[in-house]
Amino acid sequence: MIAVLKHGTTPEQTQYLVQWLARMNLDVHISEGAEVTVLGLIGDTSRVDMELLGSLEIVDSVKRVSEPFKQANRKFHPNDTVVQVGDAKIGGGNFAMIAGPCSVESEEQIIEVATAVKASGAHILRGGAFKPRTSPYAFQGMKGDGIKLLLEAKKATGLPIITEIMNISTLDLFEDVDIIQVGARNMQNFDLLKELGKTKKPILLKRGLANTLQELLMSAEYIMSEGNENIILCERGIRTFETCTRNTLDLSAVPVLHELTHLPVMVDPSHATGKAKLVAPMAVAAAASGADGIMIEVHNNPSCALCDGAQSLTPAQFDALNKKVNAVREALV
Amino acid sequence: MIAVLKHGTTPEQTQYLVQWLARMNLDVHISEGAEVTVLGLIGDTSRVDMELLGSLEIVDSVKRVSEPFKQANRKFHPNDTVVQVGDAKIGGGNFAMIAGPCSVESEEQIIEVATAVKASGAHILRGGAFKPRTSPYAFQGMKGDGIKLLLEAKKATGLPIITEIMNISTLDLFEDVDIIQVGARNMQNFDLLKELGKTKKPILLKRGLANTLQELLMSAEYIMSEGNENIILCERGIRTFETCTRNTLDLSAVPVLHELTHLPVMVDPSHATGKAKLVAPMAVAAAASGADGIMIEVHNNPSCALCDGAQSLTPAQFDALNKKVNAVREALV
Amino acid sequence: MIAVLKHGTTPEQTQYLVQWLARMNLDVHISEGAEVTVLGLIGDTSRVDMELLGSLEIVDSVKRVSEPFKQANRKFHPNDTVVQVGDAKIGGGNFAMIAGPCSVESEEQIIEVATAVKASGAHILRGGAFKPRTSPYAFQGMKGDGIKLLLEAKKATGLPIITEIMNISTLDLFEDVDIIQVGARNMQNFDLLKELGKTKKPILLKRGLANTLQELLMSAEYIMSEGNENIILCERGIRTFETCTRNTLDLSAVPVLHELTHLPVMVDPSHATGKAKLVAPMAVAAAASGADGIMIEVHNNPSCALCDGAQSLTPAQFDALNKKVNAVREALV
Amino acid sequence: MIAVLKHGTTPEQTQYLVQWLARMNLDVHISEGAEVTVLGLIGDTSRVDMELLGSLEIVDSVKRVSEPFKQANRKFHPNDTVVQVGDAKIGGGNFAMIAGPCSVESEEQIIEVATAVKASGAHILRGGAFKPRTSPYAFQGMKGDGIKLLLEAKKATGLPIITEIMNISTLDLFEDVDIIQVGARNMQNFDLLKELGKTKKPILLKRGLANTLQELLMSAEYIMSEGNENIILCERGIRTFETCTRNTLDLSAVPVLHELTHLPVMVDPSHATGKAKLVAPMAVAAAASGADGIMIEVHNNPSCALCDGAQSLTPAQFDALNKKVNAVREALV
Repeated sequence: MIAVLKHGTTPEQTQYLVQWLARMNLDVHISEGAEVTVLGLIGDTSRVDMELLGSLEIVDSVKRVSEPFKQANRKFHPNDTVVQVGDAKIGGGNFAMIAGPCSVESEEQIIEVATAVKASGAHILRGGAFKPRTSPYAFQGMKGDGIKLLLEAKKATGLPIITEIMNISTLDLFEDVDIIQVGARNMQNFDLLKELGKTKKPILLKRGLANTLQELLMSAEYIMSEGNENIILCERGIRTFETCTRNTLDLSAVPVLHELTHLPVMVDPSHATGKAKLVAPMAVAAAASGADGIMIEVHNNPSCALCDGAQSLTPAQFDALNKKVNAVREALV
Repeated sequence: MIAVLKHGTTPEQTQYLVQWLARMNLDVHISEGAEVTVLGLIGDTSRVDMELLGSLEIVDSVKRVSEPFKQANRKFHPNDTVVQVGDAKIGGGNFAMIAGPCSVESEEQIIEVATAVKASGAHILRGGAFKPRTSPYAFQGMKGDGIKLLLEAKKATGLPIITEIMNISTLDLFEDVDIIQVGARNMQNFDLLKELGKTKKPILLKRGLANTLQELLMSAEYIMSEGNENIILCERGIRTFETCTRNTLDLSAVPVLHELTHLPVMVDPSHATGKAKLVAPMAVAAAASGADGIMIEVHNNPSCALCDGAQSLTPAQFDALNKKVNAVREALV
Repeated sequence: MIAVLKHGTTPEQTQYLVQWLARMNLDVHISEGAEVTVLGLIGDTSRVDMELLGSLEIVDSVKRVSEPFKQANRKFHPNDTVVQVGDAKIGGGNFAMIAGPCSVESEEQIIEVATAVKASGAHILRGGAFKPRTSPYAFQGMKGDGIKLLLEAKKATGLPIITEIMNISTLDLFEDVDIIQVGARNMQNFDLLKELGKTKKPILLKRGLANTLQELLMSAEYIMSEGNENIILCERGIRTFETCTRNTLDLSAVPVLHELTHLPVMVDPSHATGKAKLVAPMAVAAAASGADGIMIEVHNNPSCALCDGAQSLTPAQFDALNKKVNAVREALV
Repeated sequence: MIAVLKHGTTPEQTQYLVQWLARMNLDVHISEGAEVTVLGLIGDTSRVDMELLGSLEIVDSVKRVSEPFKQANRKFHPNDTVVQVGDAKIGGGNFAMIAGPCSVESEEQIIEVATAVKASGAHILRGGAFKPRTSPYAFQGMKGDGIKLLLEAKKATGLPIITEIMNISTLDLFEDVDIIQVGARNMQNFDLLKELGKTKKPILLKRGLANTLQELLMSAEYIMSEGNENIILCERGIRTFETCTRNTLDLSAVPVLHELTHLPVMVDPSHATGKAKLVAPMAVAAAASGADGIMIEVHNNPSCALCDGAQSLTPAQFDALNKKVNAVREALV
């Protein structure tokens, strides 16, 4: 971390600041230039409050030289992390297609969809049991019963399953779930992240609608700092001024994250765009950008889906999409 | 709710849709125009999934005529809600000044600040015990001990207290807290909102960094739908592209919310701007815009604050600010 | 266009409004429902000021049923527009790769780059002569001399050329330029658009940093309304809160625009990302999303480029990128 | 400017970079720390391309210590600039109220509004003659005839006038206009700014919808670098995700700009909010935040205004607003 002192700072003021920094166990390297004095802070600067330091009367500005995330940082862990669930691997060159309905609605529905997406080549089954909804009056999911139906579908098809957790008090229900999803709205529910860090379950962590990629990595760091390194990051669209799509899918996140972290990166084009017609082109683009997996909403009868039907594909549309994704991935080998 | 059907929709298709809507207990009024057919949906449309309806092949677009929030809606509750804690009243012409440190750090600190802000005219004491921090390595607050110290300060000064909850499992610790704060990152932690709805405690609900005002009202609706109507809304800045301020304080939110809802509306200029120099002008502007209260960070030694020192005022600065706020409020009577 | 009247509107008020609308040559179809009265406006509603209509005391809300752009609208022109310059075609299944330096710097530089990108398969040469720069103290381009050097490079390689116009007073200098570019900052310089509409030159119109796709189409409409239909739209990133990339490339714009308009759609990943490392994955993703062309900055010595070197590729990197783009396009046929 | 070199940079590489910087007439002060080497660049760094420097292989990051704007910078010009037109002064403690219709529509209209707003205490008359409209089919203003009518109103009332320029070719028509306005969409029309810099007319420069405050100052710098120092900055709302208001009024811009620059800062709450009901509270808040002036749309018959009627006040509403603004300003003396 580097702190630039203002022109006119006295040696006494500089000395006072150096002592204050020393009390945080930081070594300080002072460089006096013609116009400015620069302090180089050496040691564990991840605990230093940059805003506070920057607000001091004599400090012009502060700049981090090292990133504040450690365990998620590729610099300290150059090899790709590979997350494995059942036969599916995600990361390190391994690609996973996750598919399934927005919400689990009935045994018939989930098994029909699971069978169809497996036949098309999906590796993992998704399905919402606990549903975060903007309105308290909207359908909130089948909850525990939904998880039971997912487990039936897993038994029937052999597909590992992923479903979202909203509240740590329901963790017991997720015992046989293969991947626990943290939704965009909970990306900075730090207490939830810490509790999930104490499990060994693979966690799919979705980027919040207004969160930077660095904040996403800091949230991954919350989970990892408690001991769980099985994390998959997921880009699912950010909030912008554009209204033609529900959110703006930020595909640059894929190569940016691959440079910053060793964790696998997936893309969810269904929630990002909110429109079935846009899912296929964005899924193919995500594969081309280097994503380690894609997550697609598929419903056997999209126009009757209890939620998010607007963005669900039919099994036939998913089958066509999956072929295109595979073709693009092969072309880029 | 109004649904516009596409040009060329057949009578059979229209009929099919009308029956589908009827199964949701909605009456449908059909109006056939030269270019389009318009369906007027009558009944409880708050449960209708607009996106799903809009995604149907024959539907061009869907528009709500009534807002999806009910209990928070001024249309159904024209009189201002007044939240009372101790001697302080918020809303309906009553103004409250909340002041105190970002984090509770020690008994000495919190009592010193509480005494100072009371002397300047503050009505309520704030202080963070559980702190949501972007980094798992940053100071996370004194937690339960912090609440105990706040209660000491309450005893010493008589000021009611407000502090933030991050996790419903800690609710017992808030028994003697006067107002429970839900932070911006938890605005859509729906399970937390529902649990707080089961208490009778006043809740200060902060707007999320990327949440619309309608979403804020839907989150208030989550709390109200469980029976708790003691809600104070709080604007604290939204995330934009501008980097001179930490967030962009959206003061238009004050008159917009006053029109849409009967709930009181406060403003937090400290977190919005992130810079002590900007707090006073934005606090005065907030008062001028019609806010029912303002929330200010005050620290007896800002440059040593354990968090957010960059935006804290000294007690003397707070005293000057409070005088200006009062002068503006009197000028606008 | 549909106007929803407020509950409680009197017949006299409705009649007054209908007469006001009739004076704009609109027929009005009145539909009285149980809760609301809906007016269907029939005729040329592109001239109606939606905001004004919506602000009237008795009007609850207004909604367009038809888009406000006409000549750019696919509904009225279902077949893809194909823009041809020299041997290169853009749109209707034809793909064009545009490559070249950010700025023209010297004859040697532009001919060297042009020769290299042609050898790699580029169809059109780009190069900035007039440069919009945030700072008046930054290099503003070689201006007219830059265009002369581009024409030299065109003569040497046979590649058609594209370069940006900033001021209609310089139009004469663009006589032999094949495509005139309108930059993001001029997307709503309506006087410039109108003047370009009077030429027959192909125009590449870049999306503004904070402009919606509908606004982009309205700007295309400005050019088309003056008689020039040779327009290529270009997505180049929008401004968001994310700071890892210069802007956020909105690839969903490609399929969204293809649905709304018959005009070809290109993507500029160099300006969007601002970082050379991200250009290749985003170019490949753009091709996968269905773009009709891609625009890439290539420099023979990126670290010495007079501007935007940070995002330029070397000729060798461009060659590798172009192979990948072609492979993806072939895989998706 | 400070450049941080990556760990592992060799002395030869450092030396090469230092020589490259020397060729730009910069002195370099090298500071070698344990973890990083920091280069302090001394001299005129406003011409250095930060992005290019930051993209070099051995450079970790670059940071400006001094702002890139010079003539607009308060550091080099501590006293407030005061712009005077007729009897009205703006800046340095002088406050100006600008009022008038969005568009000039007729002699009767503009003189009636001018007379009314003058009676209420307005200092300057506004009125659009050239209107930037998103749609080519919308009313584009009375152009030259509109300016003539504004001059009639000036003669009748004695109020100085302000109106917008869209195209430098119309400059002659502005000879008797007192303040020339540059609209938000032209804030980065650099050629227009340069030409206006060659006049001595006061310029009101509106912030672009997606432009940072630093970019606004750089655009002011374009005008000033050509010799015109009579500039008034104007905040008029930025584009965000919120849809309750047309744009989000960023009132923090007022104190931020006052710290960074000596130029006066006005606020336009009419365009920012787009709704008449919100104009008064935001105008009062703007005054409280320290604005040097406010710009309000007033129309004698808002529901018939040819454009932007939705946000216009009646003369009576303006009169009430102006009284409140004055009361707040007096309270804060």
